[in-house]
Amino acid sequence: MKKRCLSGMRPSGKLHLGHLHGVLGNWKRLQEEYECFFFVADWHALTTSYKRSWEIPENISEMVLDWLAVGIDPDKATLFIQSDIKEHAELHLLLSMITPLGWLERNPTYKEQKQQLKDKDIATYGFLGYPVLQAADIIMYKANKVPVGIDQLPHVELTREITRRFNFLYREIFPIPDPLLAETPKLPGLDGRKMSKSYGNSVFISDTPEEVTGKIMTMVTDVERPRKSDPGDPEKRCVAFNLHKLYMPIERLVETVEECKAARLGCVACKRELAKAVVEFLEPIWERRRNFSKSRHTIDEILEKGGKRARKEARKTMSEVRKALWNQNVRSE
Amino acid sequence: MKKRCLSGMRPSGKLHLGHLHGVLGNWKRLQEEYECFFFVADWHALTTSYKRSWEIPENISEMVLDWLAVGIDPDKATLFIQSDIKEHAELHLLLSMITPLGWLERNPTYKEQKQQLKDKDIATYGFLGYPVLQAADIIMYKANKVPVGIDQLPHVELTREITRRFNFLYREIFPIPDPLLAETPKLPGLDGRKMSKSYGNSVFISDTPEEVTGKIMTMVTDVERPRKSDPGDPEKRCVAFNLHKLYMPIERLVETVEECKAARLGCVACKRELAKAVVEFLEPIWERRRNFSKSRHTIDEILEKGGKRARKEARKTMSEVRKALWNQNVRSE
Repeated sequence: MKKRCLSGMRPSGKLHLGHLHGVLGNWKRLQEEYECFFFVADWHALTTSYKRSWEIPENISEMVLDWLAVGIDPDKATLFIQSDIKEHAELHLLLSMITPLGWLERNPTYKEQKQQLKDKDIATYGFLGYPVLQAADIIMYKANKVPVGIDQLPHVELTREITRRFNFLYREIFPIPDPLLAETPKLPGLDGRKMSKSYGNSVFISDTPEEVTGKIMTMVTDVERPRKSDPGDPEKRCVAFNLHKLYMPIERLVETVEECKAARLGCVACKRELAKAVVEFLEPIWERRRNFSKSRHTIDEILEKGGKRARKEARKTMSEVRKALWNQNVRSE
Repeated sequence: MKKRCLSGMRPSGKLHLGHLHGVLGNWKRLQEEYECFFFVADWHALTTSYKRSWEIPENISEMVLDWLAVGIDPDKATLFIQSDIKEHAELHLLLSMITPLGWLERNPTYKEQKQQLKDKDIATYGFLGYPVLQAADIIMYKANKVPVGIDQLPHVELTREITRRFNFLYREIFPIPDPLLAETPKLPGLDGRKMSKSYGNSVFISDTPEEVTGKIMTMVTDVERPRKSDPGDPEKRCVAFNLHKLYMPIERLVETVEECKAARLGCVACKRELAKAVVEFLEPIWERRRNFSKSRHTIDEILEKGGKRARKEARKTMSEVRKALWNQNVRSE
């Protein structure tokens, strides 16, 4: 039997190339190897966006369209919306009873985000407890593997602790999930910083060819090469070169470096070539996106079908959980 | 239309005379005047008893038997078990997102109980958040009134704050519930302290006549009246006299005081008379308890029927809540 893998994404809006090469690329590989549950973490989105909650539903369809466009396959993985499976809320409540406060207060991401999102008024009970909700999400499906970036390792560790505690206090019904470290380097954005919606430096999966080209043409190249006739050093100083490495065929990449260093290739022409390569890469993705978005019905159907499948598993788990918790006979078996 | 009133009780085991004259006496009056929802707070019980959760189900039936025995009427009030209505968990999760941590940390009962229950390992996330769960319980049924003792006023205040915040952030769908201060004095136990299971000084509703009599005969009377021939001062020094005031007809009460002061009535005879009065008072209650307990089926049926009725209301509320939270159209109406 295939091992189970679970991962969720907050519906924070349309996804960019960073997601495509990072999380989603990873999901595409995982769906071949594991029995995957990928979910829209809309309740999690509330922890930071509760003041603009009505923006979340629209973000959901845009995001799932992006998933499907890049090749997440609803025939291979179960795709669903967290809030469609009310059992997550029940398990979250039950786990909250056995989770020591100190575990949550010591969570490094909690401390960090509280600092970073100072304007967002997130010192709420729910924000402190989101690792508990995350634990519920994961163990609900008895996931064996949880793909994470290195910065999320402490959360998986918390899930493991909470799961061990449940198994110890009641009954050993949950496997202890293992983190699955993704090997995807962070994609730099248009300005060289990490690509992130909030930095305004992203190329979105749903951008038009014109938008993609336009954005790439604004990218900073070697600042110490003011004239085309000056030799450049793309590996050291060119922000755009980060994308070259990802989108240019290797032979052309080598040539480009040579031509830049020899001052034979100008930055404008070079970026135009890059833009063309990115657009070509995105074309089949756009094609799929167009097909899926033709009928909103399709996405709703996919999420409904996935929800049904997830709910079945969740109900199975919750009936075991309730027995373990409330039923002495089970315990003394 | 009748106003709505909601109240819950943790299933901590069989109830005593303190409950009978306190909370339950109050509930009996309320069920005549309001549309009442009375529930078994089994999820709340987990906040302090998560390490012995399997004892909770048995406590539930004993407690509900006591409710019915004293005259809580399932035809007048809706009786149900909290964990049967999963919607409470969902609303709790949603409210957790908008509840500032500081509100919970400042909750005086939280601080106090953490001190008192030091051996119980309750510094958990769920224990800190139980006022959020309580808020969900109350507003789920759009209760207008919440009967409370004076020590629970801060919780109702928290519920009011959380409700106001929901109405402000999303849409005004909830009435702000008012506390209904119960005027029931605390019943002293066998040793003169407040009657409480944990003090071992209780007469239980489900005690046999022999147990009731035996317990009352152990009660301390006037310690400055070692011999029957010494005059007593029941109002100042007799612990048993607290029960006399509750169970003796007023004429006999006056006589008793006179006879005690005149050293004409001995303590043993006096307590025997008291025990008889208490037993007489409890007889119709025992009769009802026997009838209900003959068939466990009946209680299950009552709770199932109540659960159905509660669930219907809860679903109605949650559909409004979800609309208010997720649906921009509703908001911008």
